[in-house]
Amino acid sequence: MTHPQKTGHVALVGAGPGARDLLTLRALNRLQNADVLLYDRLVDPEIMELANPRAERIYVGKEVGRCKWPQGRIDRLIVAKAKLGLRVVRLKSGDPSIFGRACEEIAAAKAAGIAVEIVPGITAASAAAAAIGVPLTERGETDTFALTTGTCKPGDARPDRARLAHPGTSMAFYMAVERAAQVQADLLGAGAPGACPVEIVAAVSTPRERHVSTTLGALADTIAREEICNPAILFIRYPKSLARQMAADGAEIAA
Amino acid sequence: MTHPQKTGHVALVGAGPGARDLLTLRALNRLQNADVLLYDRLVDPEIMELANPRAERIYVGKEVGRCKWPQGRIDRLIVAKAKLGLRVVRLKSGDPSIFGRACEEIAAAKAAGIAVEIVPGITAASAAAAAIGVPLTERGETDTFALTTGTCKPGDARPDRARLAHPGTSMAFYMAVERAAQVQADLLGAGAPGACPVEIVAAVSTPRERHVSTTLGALADTIAREEICNPAILFIRYPKSLARQMAADGAEIAA
Repeated sequence: MTHPQKTGHVALVGAGPGARDLLTLRALNRLQNADVLLYDRLVDPEIMELANPRAERIYVGKEVGRCKWPQGRIDRLIVAKAKLGLRVVRLKSGDPSIFGRACEEIAAAKAAGIAVEIVPGITAASAAAAAIGVPLTERGETDTFALTTGTCKPGDARPDRARLAHPGTSMAFYMAVERAAQVQADLLGAGAPGACPVEIVAAVSTPRERHVSTTLGALADTIAREEICNPAILFIRYPKSLARQMAADGAEIAA
Repeated sequence: MTHPQKTGHVALVGAGPGARDLLTLRALNRLQNADVLLYDRLVDPEIMELANPRAERIYVGKEVGRCKWPQGRIDRLIVAKAKLGLRVVRLKSGDPSIFGRACEEIAAAKAAGIAVEIVPGITAASAAAAAIGVPLTERGETDTFALTTGTCKPGDARPDRARLAHPGTSMAFYMAVERAAQVQADLLGAGAPGACPVEIVAAVSTPRERHVSTTLGALADTIAREEICNPAILFIRYPKSLARQMAADGAEIAA
């Protein structure tokens, strides 16, 4: 189905964390008006049910252990479909702007002279905080909230976590379950106390959602014992009051 | 209007950054079913139009320069209304979990034995990134994204920004327009290059939205010249490639 009279358009649409009612009204509008939908395994099937039933649906997900759809192939497909005059929706789990590899797809569309927009979505950390009733920042306790990832581009140095091990910081690690022992060691090594509270929220906002509370010192053991898998958010807090308490305890021991 | 047969309920609802179509479907549902709505000046009037027209509407905002509604008074009002069996919606600009002071209201509801939920919303940084087409993270360039604030609790030390001045980090500063010179000095003093790209997005997703691009070195001058006011997001990036380029330039000068 081509519409040569129409100008093609690409929308990178945040599908949110899973539950269909965490979609924005704008995202719903783009889904209902799509001609072509590109999606991957992280997008919940109940989101797909809301889309234009006549839209062409193309699965561009990775199979575990291999990469059927390298990024360049997705970029080329988006451009080719938009050049046919179609409204292309590239659905992204969460928010396209956060660990969504949106830059590559925006650059490809712009290079081809195609209009491209981002429709923001609820990112997993925000949904996890809402689900467990623990805000990502707390006045007087945490003034900075950092989102970081357990995985990065092959060959890149891993994110420097030492700078996050600071009183007043809360952190959400994405896709970091397999690297939890390294995260734990890096933060402890940089001076974060083992008593820092950690909330693990797996498969947030889906029927499989699980929540486990632990501490930084017990993080890797908890993940192994509870058999937690990705997708999960590791939400680690280093409140200012904990730093003050550690300092007071240290002074007491020294005295 | 009291419903003594009903059990009261409190929802802290993310109103998103402004535009009504950036509300989630869940937030819309809570607005349509509210008995009481508490809102402040940061919540866009077009969001209020979507709410149950029969809901009681209570403005709990601060007037500029004075604090008519201290947090404790808001907490007590939420609890009192919910105890009447009403569905209370506390609307928060953006996401209640991010600089939303949700902890106080959750604690007050829980202490009174009242069910409380958070409905997540699109935070301003996410909307700003979408509006200007510049993702908050970029694979290979920025692996950590930090949200921080220009204002904090009176008497608290200001957030330690030195640790954010690190290659691979992008930062969104909330409510920091008046403190832009201090943010700039802190980051430059900690080694971030003056060439770090900065996007200033004011009044995101409203009819008054403005976007100005600058650099870290020119941040405060740009804000003064362009007469930018809060609410605005300062989105500052320190890409890895910029750090490599600075190192190469430094080596060349030394040689």
